[in-house]
Amino acid sequence: MSSTVGQAIHCRAAVAWEAGKPLVIERVEVAPPQAMEVRLKILYTSLCHTDVYFWEAKGQNPLFPRIYGHEAGGIVESVGEGVTDLEPGDHVLPIFTGECKECAHCKSEESNMCDLLRINTDRGVMLSDGKSRFSIRGQPIYHFLGTSTFSEYTVVHVGCVAKINPLAPLDKVCVISCGISTGLGAMVNVAKPPKGSTVAVFGLGAVGLAAAEGARMAGASRIIGVDLNPNRFQGAKKFGVTEFVNPKDHNKPVQEVIVEMTNGGVDRSVECTGNVNAMISAFECVHDGWGVAVLVGVPHKDAVFKTHPINLLNERSLKGTFFGNYKPRSDIPSVVEKYINKELEVEKFITHQVPFSEINKAFDYMLEGESLRCIIRMEE
Amino acid sequence: MSSTVGQAIHCRAAVAWEAGKPLVIERVEVAPPQAMEVRLKILYTSLCHTDVYFWEAKGQNPLFPRIYGHEAGGIVESVGEGVTDLEPGDHVLPIFTGECKECAHCKSEESNMCDLLRINTDRGVMLSDGKSRFSIRGQPIYHFLGTSTFSEYTVVHVGCVAKINPLAPLDKVCVISCGISTGLGAMVNVAKPPKGSTVAVFGLGAVGLAAAEGARMAGASRIIGVDLNPNRFQGAKKFGVTEFVNPKDHNKPVQEVIVEMTNGGVDRSVECTGNVNAMISAFECVHDGWGVAVLVGVPHKDAVFKTHPINLLNERSLKGTFFGNYKPRSDIPSVVEKYINKELEVEKFITHQVPFSEINKAFDYMLEGESLRCIIRMEE
Ligand SMILES: NC(=O)c1ccc[n+]([C@@H]2O[C@H](COP(=O)([O-])OP(=O)(O)OC[C@H]3O[C@@H](n4cnc5c(N)ncnc54)[C@H](O)[C@@H]3O)[C@@H](O)[C@H]2O)c1
Ligand SMILES: NC(=O)c1ccc[n+]([C@@H]2O[C@H](COP(=O)([O-])OP(=O)(O)OC[C@H]3O[C@@H](n4cnc5c(N)ncnc54)[C@H](O)[C@@H]3O)[C@@H](O)[C@H]2O)c1
Ligand SMILES: [Zn+2]
Ligand SMILES: [Zn+2]
Ligand SMILES: [Zn+2]
Ligand SMILES: [Zn+2]
Repeated sequence: MSSTVGQAIHCRAAVAWEAGKPLVIERVEVAPPQAMEVRLKILYTSLCHTDVYFWEAKGQNPLFPRIYGHEAGGIVESVGEGVTDLEPGDHVLPIFTGECKECAHCKSEESNMCDLLRINTDRGVMLSDGKSRFSIRGQPIYHFLGTSTFSEYTVVHVGCVAKINPLAPLDKVCVISCGISTGLGAMVNVAKPPKGSTVAVFGLGAVGLAAAEGARMAGASRIIGVDLNPNRFQGAKKFGVTEFVNPKDHNKPVQEVIVEMTNGGVDRSVECTGNVNAMISAFECVHDGWGVAVLVGVPHKDAVFKTHPINLLNERSLKGTFFGNYKPRSDIPSVVEKYINKELEVEKFITHQVPFSEINKAFDYMLEGESLRCIIRMEE
Repeated sequence: MSSTVGQAIHCRAAVAWEAGKPLVIERVEVAPPQAMEVRLKILYTSLCHTDVYFWEAKGQNPLFPRIYGHEAGGIVESVGEGVTDLEPGDHVLPIFTGECKECAHCKSEESNMCDLLRINTDRGVMLSDGKSRFSIRGQPIYHFLGTSTFSEYTVVHVGCVAKINPLAPLDKVCVISCGISTGLGAMVNVAKPPKGSTVAVFGLGAVGLAAAEGARMAGASRIIGVDLNPNRFQGAKKFGVTEFVNPKDHNKPVQEVIVEMTNGGVDRSVECTGNVNAMISAFECVHDGWGVAVLVGVPHKDAVFKTHPINLLNERSLKGTFFGNYKPRSDIPSVVEKYINKELEVEKFITHQVPFSEINKAFDYMLEGESLRCIIRMEE
């Protein structure tokens, strides 16, 4: 048993002191895990757009100082009281939404929105005592999404931890802990394109490309990628995208362009941008009679989804999903197995790597639309 | 063969000369059916709210003079060229949406929105030649929904005619030709409530009560009826409604009231009002994680459906349907069989009866919220 068990750990964390300002690597104190919590040593973490939105805090509630990060791989350092299915040394992925295994959602086959542990972007503290496990000279630092992986050590509720095959390389499968699973699951678990169908994917970041990958695995015959950033198109071919549409290249709304290209609309669309206009376009570009649109992007807090109700009456369906409808503890270990069995390639999502001390570069790459996923190595 | 075959027929029809003004019983000339058309003798027709909306033309495009009516039962008088599956004497229900049996929609299991014959509320003429079959002293009178059943004889595309068991009494099963099928199908074909589930129905007219009936047939345990008209509540119990909510009795939005009553929301909701606020409430009152809302009401042409996208991301689904997703020719004969086999009671939907000469009374009953369905007897 490690000598740190039951003790506070002092380690490096990247603290966001203010909205939109570069993170600062600080020495933080990480308290031991309380009942039903585990403390993880994070080895690799990556940056997802959701971190960037809440750090920018333009369309979201500000909460600072805070430690961001929710896409990561690590090893259990110690466990709190009552934790029976994890032990020190286990290889794990922390997940931004949890699974208590007891509530109506956890018991439902359809939902992964655990009553207790579902995503809560405004909570900056642990559930059990309403306190933070992070502090700097006594000043508490807020958590983010219950994961806060931009720290060498973090404390997470046991329900937000997926135990995975220790043979899986954490520097690769860490991206399964949010973006890849979200996009892949949105397509294969929610949109469910029939073989031979036509699909549109809005937003060709890692989440959207994972959705495209899911469409290809499902046997879609046309996969139309939509993005405002033309640099996304070249690389997207590797993910099965067959055609590209840049809304900026057209005078009419992009949904009309897609409806024309597809003789009435696509069979399925998945929106992975967070932009409400893209959400509306993604809905209005599906075929009447049978089309299904799935929303994934995290919206601005004041965003309003608007459409004429006739678009619904014309037998279109509209849905949304968190984390691709995967249940973190029950389902994610098998997504990792898909990587091990070479059914799912994750390397192609990883475009950049930086040491922890250069974490701010990962933000720049994403803001410039240059990266899909940038892996941040905790060990320099 | 009747002596009228191939000839114009002169008969009585209720003509709407102006928006919102009482219909006038006129002698009209009904031309013979053209290729792929049939001429029907209407025996019974009833009034659906969709007739009223387009006659009022407040939220819809005005088109006058016009012969309304789309819920009816009748007998084939004669058939046009190329019609092989109907013959004079067949008992039929004309349907406001058609089935060509050849387009992508007709071939899809999911859609009933035939490319050729789907509902078109703005068209007042026949498809083949863009002309009306009705005239008064040479002046054409517009059709409505391709059915125009407020006439002793009418001409309909063969794809909009369901041939039914001649043992079924037309004065009862005429209501299956729109409202009952629409509500029943919206529930059993689209919302599909699991056994034991909790359901909300917005609008307790014939369409909404048929939806409630469908929920009961599916084994729903709680059926919450929502209406602004408290007179609807008493009768609704016969249709399986177990609880009532009048939005006017509450200071907060009715979706919040329902969410509280049901510990998080209903499993399924079906909106049968045509009011866009009710559509939004019907969506927002379903449970996150698995709730499904289905829109049925015909919206005002300028209506906008608005919601925060987070309501979708929280794993709710939103759909719409025309005619309960039934395919008119393939499916409706079996709904009539359900009536014959006493699985489906239609009598309780029929609250009033008038002779054709008093058709304007049917409008009054509906506008006052007094009737569910008023049967109009063409023979005095
Ligand atoms: N629902 C969930 O569980 C969940 C989980 C993870 C991420 N997300 C969200 O998914 C979205 C994508 O995440 P990511 O990490 O792939 O981000 P990303 O920044 O790498 O990719 C987003 C892409 O969308 C494009 N885009 C932005 N606005 C657009 C518009 N109007 N039309 C077309 N393209 C547009 C951008 O150019 C970019 O290429 C974000 O909103 C993120 O917050 C949701
Ligand atoms: N989609 C289709 O295929 C289809 C087919 C037939 C009818 N319809 C539509 O279905 C709707 C119902 O038709 P009907 O014939 O039963 O009409 P109806 O007038 O008999 O019943 C409608 C009921 O809704 C109630 N209502 C109105 N606004 C409301 C609100 N904001 N909240 C709660 N209740 C409200 C009314 O009091 C009334 O009892 C109409 O909009 C009609 O046009 C659609
Ligand atoms: Zn993420
Ligand atoms: Zn749970
Ligand atoms: Zn109707
Ligand atoms: Zn068709």
